[in-house]
Amino acid sequence: MTLFDPAAELGGSLAPKENSSAHSNSVIIRMTVAYDGTDFHGFAQQRNQRTVAGEISGALSKVLRAEITLACAGRTDAGVHAWGQVVSFGAPDGTDPAMLVERLNRMLGSEIAVRDASIAPLGFDARHSARARTYRYTVLNRSTPDPSMARSAWWVPEPIDIHALQLAATPFIGEHDFASFCRKGPEGSTTVRRVLESEWHDLGDGVLRYQVKATAFCWQMVRALVGTQVEAGRGKRKAGEILSILRAMDRAAAGQLAPPHGLSLWRVDYEDASS
Amino acid sequence: MTLFDPAAELGGSLAPKENSSAHSNSVIIRMTVAYDGTDFHGFAQQRNQRTVAGEISGALSKVLRAEITLACAGRTDAGVHAWGQVVSFGAPDGTDPAMLVERLNRMLGSEIAVRDASIAPLGFDARHSARARTYRYTVLNRSTPDPSMARSAWWVPEPIDIHALQLAATPFIGEHDFASFCRKGPEGSTTVRRVLESEWHDLGDGVLRYQVKATAFCWQMVRALVGTQVEAGRGKRKAGEILSILRAMDRAAAGQLAPPHGLSLWRVDYEDASS
Repeated sequence: MTLFDPAAELGGSLAPKENSSAHSNSVIIRMTVAYDGTDFHGFAQQRNQRTVAGEISGALSKVLRAEITLACAGRTDAGVHAWGQVVSFGAPDGTDPAMLVERLNRMLGSEIAVRDASIAPLGFDARHSARARTYRYTVLNRSTPDPSMARSAWWVPEPIDIHALQLAATPFIGEHDFASFCRKGPEGSTTVRRVLESEWHDLGDGVLRYQVKATAFCWQMVRALVGTQVEAGRGKRKAGEILSILRAMDRAAAGQLAPPHGLSLWRVDYEDASS
Repeated sequence: MTLFDPAAELGGSLAPKENSSAHSNSVIIRMTVAYDGTDFHGFAQQRNQRTVAGEISGALSKVLRAEITLACAGRTDAGVHAWGQVVSFGAPDGTDPAMLVERLNRMLGSEIAVRDASIAPLGFDARHSARARTYRYTVLNRSTPDPSMARSAWWVPEPIDIHALQLAATPFIGEHDFASFCRKGPEGSTTVRRVLESEWHDLGDGVLRYQVKATAFCWQMVRALVGTQVEAGRGKRKAGEILSILRAMDRAAAGQLAPPHGLSLWRVDYEDASS
């Protein structure tokens, strides 16, 4: 396996002679990826752990015969799913995106699917070029659980008032310091984020879905938002408390983290308005 | 743990004295059970294998402090799911069905759920009292797979003509010898069955659902019906062949078995018309 470095490729190929024509230039590939995160240690590659990025880059490296490093729009935690995760990577010139989709879907098994792939403009980076991320969180609010939703919804048997959820969701919209809802990042990093959409939908039959869109999220933010709102929905807090929790800028002021398995990275928006 | 035998109980309790009032009579409990069959070796209890019946009767035996044997409406194979499986068993008089639902759902984990429980008329047996069984089979017909449906739908990337499926489904309705669609049972057992409903529904977005209802099914019959119809839908057979396949009464005349994970026991009908 040769190490593929798009920057180096611009200056001259280090690849073996038989590959040199294929490697004489480089392209950026952008892919939309869906996964069931249940049995992965999250998205980001980690040594000796089964991760989504590890599986995808391993398969890509075999297909492209070059070591591939992925950028991604959202580094989902262990147990979190995705329908619209976006990844990008440099690949040898001449790489056929349609061939990649077909070969990867055959190699990756049923837990990961490549929904589409295309050549992206030079400079495109799935993380830095993203303008907004949308997450969905599903709650199953019924007295008895549903095994077919056990991997994708948080089962809450106690009654939840959907109107209280909807009231609690609104104050998050706008630019706020979400320190009360974020696991602490490196010293000096900001927890100010701009939330563009924050809404609960009653899908019927006890299925409640939260959709939240922001330019970016801090670590575990969506799960903290959901956990706090569900406490309001169950009458353990008042929906009117949300503003004072935001103002406290103290993680202890907000509620418990909702479990990861109800969460899915739904879509990512880029400047060209596609997902 | 005392062995609970409703027949013996009628003659006189063998249970320890402190339990004798609770055991002085017996009731039949009927429960509706849902499960994700992915990680079970089928429904029926087997020594040294994790089965749905094994998990449920194990939990029941702890709650009722008596050994419980389950009857069931349909012995689903390994990997097959259920939304409306019905089970029945004898239990000590005074057993509270609502308490059973609550305690079992706490004990059984996320793969099995007890949807309801009630006292059934004496003589009720989930298997012998059933009048009809309805199964659903889900096919995902898209060029790329969907990880969130990987456990519950058969992914078929090749184009399927829904009209060919619908044409192929109709001839099954009525009383036929389904020998071409059944794994051989014991010598002399009949493979004649009465099919009451056999229809494909296009749910949109590539999701195709087959619903089939019969007084009873023979072993692997639904999966053979689906496998054969999907071959017709893909143009590998003509929908008009179905009648001659039925008449052949030869398993080799029909198509491949569809995989188990697309199949779910959807509901069971009893004389009282409830599921």
